[in-house]
This record gives sequence, structure tokens and C-alpha cells, in this order.
Amino acid sequence: MIEMKSRPSIIGFGNSVGKLEGDGPLKEYFDLTDTDSKFGMKTWEKAESEMIRQAVSITLKKAHLKPGNIELAFGGDLSNQCTATALGMRGFNIPYAGLYGACSTFALGIGLASISIESGKFSTTMAISSSHYSSAERQYRFPLEYGCQRTPTAQTTVTGAGCVILSKDTKSYPYVSAFVPGTICDLGITDANNMGAAMAPAAADTVLKYFSITREDPNNYDYILTGDLGAEGHKIFTDLCLKNGLALGKNSNDCGKMIYNLKEQEVNSGGSGCGCSASVFTAFVMNEFMENKIHDVLLIGTGALLNPSTVLQNETIPGIAHLVRIRREQ
Amino acid sequence: MIEMKSRPSIIGFGNSVGKLEGDGPLKEYFDLTDTDSKFGMKTWEKAESEMIRQAVSITLKKAHLKPGNIELAFGGDLSNQCTATALGMRGFNIPYAGLYGACSTFALGIGLASISIESGKFSTTMAISSSHYSSAERQYRFPLEYGCQRTPTAQTTVTGAGCVILSKDTKSYPYVSAFVPGTICDLGITDANNMGAAMAPAAADTVLKYFSITREDPNNYDYILTGDLGAEGHKIFTDLCLKNGLALGKNSNDCGKMIYNLKEQEVNSGGSGCGCSASVFTAFVMNEFMENKIHDVLLIGTGALLNPSTVLQNETIPGIAHLVRIRREQ
Repeated sequence: MIEMKSRPSIIGFGNSVGKLEGDGPLKEYFDLTDTDSKFGMKTWEKAESEMIRQAVSITLKKAHLKPGNIELAFGGDLSNQCTATALGMRGFNIPYAGLYGACSTFALGIGLASISIESGKFSTTMAISSSHYSSAERQYRFPLEYGCQRTPTAQTTVTGAGCVILSKDTKSYPYVSAFVPGTICDLGITDANNMGAAMAPAAADTVLKYFSITREDPNNYDYILTGDLGAEGHKIFTDLCLKNGLALGKNSNDCGKMIYNLKEQEVNSGGSGCGCSASVFTAFVMNEFMENKIHDVLLIGTGALLNPSTVLQNETIPGIAHLVRIRREQ
Repeated sequence: MIEMKSRPSIIGFGNSVGKLEGDGPLKEYFDLTDTDSKFGMKTWEKAESEMIRQAVSITLKKAHLKPGNIELAFGGDLSNQCTATALGMRGFNIPYAGLYGACSTFALGIGLASISIESGKFSTTMAISSSHYSSAERQYRFPLEYGCQRTPTAQTTVTGAGCVILSKDTKSYPYVSAFVPGTICDLGITDANNMGAAMAPAAADTVLKYFSITREDPNNYDYILTGDLGAEGHKIFTDLCLKNGLALGKNSNDCGKMIYNLKEQEVNSGGSGCGCSASVFTAFVMNEFMENKIHDVLLIGTGALLNPSTVLQNETIPGIAHLVRIRREQ
């Protein structure tokens, strides 16, 4: 576990989301909701890049910063070769480090952006991640026009992009106090329609590691948020922790369960995708921080490290989970 | 430009390559050459993961270290969702940060692994990257069985993986003294068979930035190595630098030109892929350092940020270039 001394502070945050997300329980917290999830573009892939560009623009504007103020941006998404973020970022002229951590990308980006601040070599850094339901469906599964049925354990890729800007200790903003980079866990899950189950062991591994080091009471945290296991995966994760002696308590939740109304929005097991935890964190969680309602949060980004070819080649699905602790002075 | 005070030192290095690379001019420097580039596996994708696993194992062994000594590994490749590295790394239980920078991944990994050391929070980190000709061909272009002809400007994806281990200042090993993270440059190139031309402006941008800050004479470096522009792209890069007042001199070369015999090996414009600069650096360059033949090298990793869908959707091809300076005491 890395404990940050420089208190890298989240001085900027913003997001842009699609229609389904904007109709969900967190609708009042999003900065921009696009009515048809196309963001004015002709293809879903171009729409995702434009959504990212808008999330970054909004974040810079809210923080009263210009692209030239950002010394290094960490970003990634689910598209092949991570082109969504690369094309979305290309107009800003910001030094750019591309990441791939599947749905763990946002937490990984916050962790690495914090270490960069901690090194004393950067004063302002950025983390961004995104996903788009329609570009992900046709890349990973089937074109939407095919009308394929989905299993109850399948998750719904969130259309959303979230961005944070980190800077040296500022006292008044929430700050990253700890980072646990995850290791790759593979318990032999092969069902690509149940990625929550593939990621749950990785999430449990990282969280158990964290609590075995800190020996803190999970109830002391305002939120312990995984992102994104969905309903199925979050239950497995909670059970795995309990079996290992860690009762997570009532403040434990999953970004994939929070972003949708699971009963009414036909999203099966809940949300997933790099944009899920990114948009829930930069909308709802940061809002709660800034309104002084919460002061201590664990965000555990969870990724399933597969692609369609590895599934066809009978590979199991490894998972990874990166943890960041975000605090704000009372 | 980031100047490292802690002198993150390259205390371990290793690689594994395929047959074509093992037949090339650098054959004597590679740690492992597989005779049929399959590394004992049934598919090219599994072969790439196994090649990575072997490169990491060899590197650890040569450095007399165990996986548990590595506190954070940065890694990436060209496969969709970077699964080659994830599956290759899954048995080591090393905290893992996935990167995507196309062919710039190795230099980016060295830069971020160095910043992690510089933060004082990590004492030993790793960077790894790889590519495999046969898995890349069928993912990006056509299955090999199709026997497709290639244009003269096309590059040949290197089958190779290279790995370095960095640690705090050790005096006796080469160390990373500077890092310039690149910005995304897009000059409107759309020909996916001429990626050198797409990456050359990004390489020139980063190198011109470096020399405008340091005001040093390029002739003072033992090597200024791009990785990997190929013969075509390296010529464009050299011309772009010259037009902007920077004469790079006789020590400027490209890893994609060095790894093959361009006249005899039928590789068109030379090598490319994340594994090209990774294997050239960890084999030839590190060997020259350890034999005290060289003392100051610039490695400029260059990536083309495209995928087959962006090409079909008429996107231009943005490039990015990350620079690291490696020195060793005389």
C-alpha cells in the first residue's frame, strides 16, 4: 500500500453521459447528458471520443484551468487499441499516458496521477476514462441491430466519461491518501457473460490486503465502492470478504448498482465499463464530498482482462482491482 | 521535461524473440530465440503471452530477483484489450499497471516506472512490452494464410518481448536521468500502411522539445534511437528535425532499422511493434552499456494511435512519442 504524503487533491472533476445514465437515479449529478448518446456524431466510436472531449473540456472549465496547465494525463477506455481516448484527447496538446485496465482504468489513473504528484515532478495531473454502450456492444458482442438476448448475469456497458484533475495539497479539496495497485487474479472463470464473477476475487484480494494492513473498521468509511462488479459480482465479492473474516457493512456498494435503477431500467446485473465508476465518482461521490456529507471513501476499480479472441481460445478470465482512498478534512 | 534525482537504475534486463529477429544482425544479443516463434503454444496469441512470461522470467533470473521483489510492473502490447501482457503476467502475482501506447509503450513504461521510483514510494519497478508478428497480422490486417502483398512503406511487426527492472540509485548500472512524456500529434496522415509517416511528426515534436530545453549537442549522445519509425519514417523524422534547425548527426538511428537486415530479410521499411524497441534496447543497447562502450542514450518510443475501425471510419492517424534519457557513469 502506497500512502501519499503530498496529499494529491482532486481540484477538478467533470463528466458526460448518455441517455440511459441520464434517466437513472444519479441524473441530477451529471454535468452533461446527451439525449441520443451520439454526441452529434455519425458513428458510435466517434461519439465516444466526442463524449471524452466534452468531459475533459467541462472539467477544465469548472476548475478554471486550461489544457496547458495539465502536465500529464492518464487515460483509457475499452475500445481496441484505446483509440476512443486517444482521439478524444488529441486536440488538447496535453502530455498523455495511455492506460488499459478494463473497468479498473479510472482507479488506476487516479493512483498513477497521484504518484506523479507525489514524485514532486508534476504539480497538476489528470485521469480520464470512458466507455460507450453501443461501441462496446458491437466490438465485444454483436451489433445492436442483431437484437441479441442477454443473460441475467450480464452487465450493461455504461455510456459515460469521467475526468479528475489532481494537484498538490490544497486543503479545501478531497485528496488521495492511499493507493493499492492490484495484482492479476485468475480463479478459472470462463463465462464472459458473468464478468462480475471473474472480477470479484481480484476485488476481494485487494480489499482484504488493504484492511489487513490498515486494520481499520470498514464501518468508518462513508463508502466502500467497487466499480464495477454489478449486482451478481458484488454479492460474490461481499461473500468472499466475509469468508476471509471481513464484514464490509452497510456502506459497501458498487458503482454498477448505483448508476441504474436495476428493477426498472432493464440493465440485467447493472452497469460496467471504464465509464461507470468514472461517471459515478465524478458526479455523485464528488458532489457528496464537496457538500461535506462524506469524508472518507474507498474506490476499488475492478477490471476483467479478456478480449473476444481469448474467450474463443478457451482462456480463463483474469481480473484485477486497484484501490484508492479519498479523504476530505472534516 | 522530468529530470530524475533518484537516478532510477536499470538493474535487470532481458528479452525473448522470434525466428526472424534471431536471424537478424542483433542475433548474438538476444537472451532467447524461439525457432518457430510459437514458443510451444497452439495459437499465436498464446505464443505471445508465453514469450512475455519467458522474458519476465529471464529478466528476474538474470537480476537474481524474485517476482515478490517487484512492487509495480508497467506493461502493454498491441493485442486488443492488451490481453497478451495480462495473460503473460498473471502467474507472477506482481502489482500490475496496464499501458497502451502502441509502439511507444516501452519508453512510456520506463518513464512511469522511473517516476514511481522517484516518488520514493517504490524501491523496485518493472517495464515490459511485446508484440508478435503473426497475432498482429491477423488482428490488424489479414490472416497470414491469405498471402497478402504489402506496400514498400509498410513495417514488419517484430516478434519480441523486452523487460527492464528499475531500482533506486545503484551507481554501477545505467540510470534514467530524464523523461519527456509526449503529446498526441495529428498531421492528417490517413495511410495505415505508412505508420512511420504518421509517427514522425510526434517524434520530431518530442525530440525538438527536449533539445530546445537542454540546448545540448546531439553529437554528445552515443545513440539517439527512435522506436519504431522504420526506414521511411526515420527519414521523414530526420528531415523534420533539420527543417526546425536540429541536425541529429550520425548517432541517430531507429530500432526498426537495426533489428533486421533491411536488404536481405524482406521486411519492407523495417521493424515495428511494442516489442521492437523493447528487444533492441534490452539486448543490444543494454549490452553496449554494460560493456562500457556507451554512456548516454536517448530512446524515443513512437506510437501510432489507430485501430482498424478508425481507419475504416476515415479518421486520421495521430502519433505520440515518449522520450527517456539513459546514462551510465564513465
